[in-house]
Amino acid sequence: MNLEISPQGVIAGSIPLFAGHPARDLLPLDGIQAAIDAIWQDESVTRLFNYGDEQGNPELIDFLVERLRRDEGLEIGRENLMIIGGSTWGVDMISDQLTRAGDVLLVDAPSYRDALHIFRDHRLELRDVPIDDGGIVIAELERTLRELEVEGRAPKFYYVVPNFQNPSGITMPEERRMAVIELSRRYGFVIVEDDVYCDIRFGDQLPPSFYALARGENVLRLGTFSKTLAPGLRIGWLVGAADRIADFVGSGLLTMGGGANPFTAAIVAQYCRSGAWEAHLRWLREQYRARRDIALGALDSVMPASVTYTRPRGGYFIWLGLPPSLRVDDLAAAASERNVYFAPGAGFFADPADGLHHLRLSFSFLPLEDLRAGIEVLGDLIRQMSR
Amino acid sequence: MNLEISPQGVIAGSIPLFAGHPARDLLPLDGIQAAIDAIWQDESVTRLFNYGDEQGNPELIDFLVERLRRDEGLEIGRENLMIIGGSTWGVDMISDQLTRAGDVLLVDAPSYRDALHIFRDHRLELRDVPIDDGGIVIAELERTLRELEVEGRAPKFYYVVPNFQNPSGITMPEERRMAVIELSRRYGFVIVEDDVYCDIRFGDQLPPSFYALARGENVLRLGTFSKTLAPGLRIGWLVGAADRIADFVGSGLLTMGGGANPFTAAIVAQYCRSGAWEAHLRWLREQYRARRDIALGALDSVMPASVTYTRPRGGYFIWLGLPPSLRVDDLAAAASERNVYFAPGAGFFADPADGLHHLRLSFSFLPLEDLRAGIEVLGDLIRQMSR
Repeated sequence: MNLEISPQGVIAGSIPLFAGHPARDLLPLDGIQAAIDAIWQDESVTRLFNYGDEQGNPELIDFLVERLRRDEGLEIGRENLMIIGGSTWGVDMISDQLTRAGDVLLVDAPSYRDALHIFRDHRLELRDVPIDDGGIVIAELERTLRELEVEGRAPKFYYVVPNFQNPSGITMPEERRMAVIELSRRYGFVIVEDDVYCDIRFGDQLPPSFYALARGENVLRLGTFSKTLAPGLRIGWLVGAADRIADFVGSGLLTMGGGANPFTAAIVAQYCRSGAWEAHLRWLREQYRARRDIALGALDSVMPASVTYTRPRGGYFIWLGLPPSLRVDDLAAAASERNVYFAPGAGFFADPADGLHHLRLSFSFLPLEDLRAGIEVLGDLIRQMSR
Repeated sequence: MNLEISPQGVIAGSIPLFAGHPARDLLPLDGIQAAIDAIWQDESVTRLFNYGDEQGNPELIDFLVERLRRDEGLEIGRENLMIIGGSTWGVDMISDQLTRAGDVLLVDAPSYRDALHIFRDHRLELRDVPIDDGGIVIAELERTLRELEVEGRAPKFYYVVPNFQNPSGITMPEERRMAVIELSRRYGFVIVEDDVYCDIRFGDQLPPSFYALARGENVLRLGTFSKTLAPGLRIGWLVGAADRIADFVGSGLLTMGGGANPFTAAIVAQYCRSGAWEAHLRWLREQYRARRDIALGALDSVMPASVTYTRPRGGYFIWLGLPPSLRVDDLAAAASERNVYFAPGAGFFADPADGLHHLRLSFSFLPLEDLRAGIEVLGDLIRQMSR
């Protein structure tokens, strides 16, 4: 995605269907400003500009622990949670601390492109396992684990976006999660659950998290405010067993830097504790749901039957499969001539060749009319090109 | 340093001479607030809360490039600089990208404790080289490099705080820097110059940076706003050859997270471009200089001749050597009974045994009366204990 997004948000005239950003009008700037104003009234404001606690803003830790206990029944205390600079920080930190160059990880096929990028930067070997509409295919996961065992190797962790997966939009049901946990115990790997979209659900309750189902054993669960508040604040959290959290909190990264983003973490803490976040979430789900409906409506009306696509119940993304005769690169080239851009499938696979007939659309960012228009252009092109 | 610093800044009644933080009254909160207010007037404020450019806030990059060109005559363009989340982020990112577990690094003896911690987290092997009052001893560095050559190994980089070193307060003169650069070329290692204190100089011009002297070749230079503005904003910068900066900017860490701390980087950019930073720096140097003078005055009046200490011309720290008969752990234990705490030498050495008779004092954080009182307690104890 080499396209620059201008300060106004979108390159004039173009339709970036790839952009997995919150739309500008979904960022609660007034609420953030109110939180900053409130912080400034507090006599302890000065501490927010110095080095902070290694574990992160204490009020935000308490808020999140209480919320997870209340809403999900998680049996956690503050020793199980730390603040991080967005889930990116978590993925990088976990890679640093749990792996060495050459280690093997398990990832979905497809999986989240930028996380794969971080894993590759750490020179980790990616073993990918196909997913179906319930997420990772257990028989294939078992086969991969047995293969690795024969090679005398054990994966360090399985990286998964369990809810409204990026890029597919798929949510893994409870029994599938339990089967993964079962295998993680048998084969001794950690589950890294990058649960960034759980708060953007449009209907039903979600299955319990891996963390909940495994009672916290060998699961690290990431959360973020980037999708539900504002990415530019760079605040997320990590939940895990107390000894693992203590290891992370005691790392050089946290000791030297003094905890994740003390000032913006305080803004988020103030915002959340005022009740603004829950109210914003209710509104936000409606907004994203309307966008999802428009995207699916447009797809339903313009796509030929040879095109498959997911129907996500939350999150930001829809995953399209093209007919075998149509390569996604050809579609991308044709679409770019009409100023429409999307995320081609190749980037989401450990082996890019697996993504030659897939693409990801995001419904989070674009103005509604552009979202519809962009999909209509793709429909046109696919009809023309698959003739 | 397991002591918690309370929201009020200092544990009631205790004197934490270890704290390498800016003092509370040296943080320009009014200026930061004015910068936030100004940002909010800008119609493009929304973009600061979304994902940002991977390279960092463009206005801040331009400001820093222009300043380095003007003040230091560096021949750099914006392709040579990126924004990072404090120099911590830089040390961690450089370790990730330039090394693998088991690689060798060169460090000073003593060197900055928290950076050593990050290197250990990356499972790097630390070869330390003694310093004298001009920094690393070249003959010792050469000897270490020859030893490594015999072992068939080459260090990946030399980590150095070139100005007002943490913990010693020492600044390396130009000829010594040139000798290091000469050796870096012969033996093929990178120089990582963590130049966090250069703007807190009390008098003379500083020697040209390693980056300047080597004309940017194989040098990565870190800078930060943590010492001269506010650590809690978590903003620093990295200067390097264009291809190296492009590698960092193109990493998964930056791609996934969308650049370092977009909102706080914008605050810093606004603050700097208003001229407030330069004015603050002039004032800040006076403040820290007065603190240094009080600390040295107290040391001069209370320390027996058997105690050595550095006389830094900038930065935050003074490094003390105790008489051979006095172990720093014994002094620490006695001092803690009088509520005085300092940073024992062991943490600053690759081999902790090398630090048994040294300690670091910080003059940056404490109220002046506490600074003086703390040093007087240490003087008392050292006199008693070295009898």
